[in-house]
Amino acid sequence: MTTTDSPAKLDHPIRNGVDTATLFATLDAVRQAPEAAKFQFRAHNQWVSGTHNRGTIDDYFGVGEERTHERSFVFDADHPAVLVGQDHGPTPVEFVLHALAACLTAGLANIAAARNIKLTEVHSTVTGDIDLNGILGLNPEVRNGYQQITVRFAIKGDAPAEKLRELLEQSRARSAVYDVVTNGVPVAIEVDTA
Amino acid sequence: MTTTDSPAKLDHPIRNGVDTATLFATLDAVRQAPEAAKFQFRAHNQWVSGTHNRGTIDDYFGVGEERTHERSFVFDADHPAVLVGQDHGPTPVEFVLHALAACLTAGLANIAAARNIKLTEVHSTVTGDIDLNGILGLNPEVRNGYQQITVRFAIKGDAPAEKLRELLEQSRARSAVYDVVTNGVPVAIEVDTA
Repeated sequence: MTTTDSPAKLDHPIRNGVDTATLFATLDAVRQAPEAAKFQFRAHNQWVSGTHNRGTIDDYFGVGEERTHERSFVFDADHPAVLVGQDHGPTPVEFVLHALAACLTAGLANIAAARNIKLTEVHSTVTGDIDLNGILGLNPEVRNGYQQITVRFAIKGDAPAEKLRELLEQSRARSAVYDVVTNGVPVAIEVDTA
Repeated sequence: MTTTDSPAKLDHPIRNGVDTATLFATLDAVRQAPEAAKFQFRAHNQWVSGTHNRGTIDDYFGVGEERTHERSFVFDADHPAVLVGQDHGPTPVEFVLHALAACLTAGLANIAAARNIKLTEVHSTVTGDIDLNGILGLNPEVRNGYQQITVRFAIKGDAPAEKLRELLEQSRARSAVYDVVTNGVPVAIEVDTA
């Protein structure tokens, strides 16, 4: 490793803000103990009023034990007035687009660090086309969810365009949210009315 | 409509915080002009450092024109230290769970209002099981995304348990995020490296 953003820490190279030594050590640790990679993530939600509700993300399970984030993250969701809400937060479907952009971006930075490419700028816009005749129950031919999602990235760094494109392709190939959104996941629903 | 939470506004009944008159008027308007229901939602994202990035949700298209939320909603995403990040926000995959809980909850409140059921409490926890051997590239047999998602709701209201369960079942049947997460969506990715 010949490149570091932090000359004072040559024994612990940071590239793109990624602690590559820890990244590689983590990969080695999981290679030795694959069970460590079994995680359970969670979101808690409390209805507030109408379409307004509040999600909390704090606890999760991973590397063999219960864990918590350094703080609780709280997110309101709502509908805008045009969808009969009060716009206290994004719509639920917008959070899905945010998740997709965030996952591809995090992967890109990790992969660039592993490949010794320094990124200078990464931004993206994710758009999702949806026909609400589906969720409104007005047209049985129309699905409830997005019909199409398009991700547009702008990436700058110290590598040729082709190498930058390959970073994004590899990030896509290893993205958890991309997999969920394109391939779907079995969802079980349980309810307690006591 | 014989029930209202707001006796002062009998001509404009609010149930569960849902403006049912506007809800039904919106349904009628879309029935007359189905094109109004074509929406495009968007999320913008800016890489910060490492796995830390920041999403912004503000603009969208719907009911025939460009619109913006009443304010911009900004959300950081990151990995926790155990996943070689700095825990500046939830992981991207956790936002997916939040989106699913939020969508089912908003639908539940709307459907309860339409069915004249008063809700007193709705909360939920969504869990997603994931084996990170997939995204770490350590086991080609393991998928990148969640292997299973489980949603657990607790619902209280002024209706028999069976009616409360039916609300959740109808919300599931009309949920945009549930459809996306269970059935998947085509995703196109474009990149600009100029």
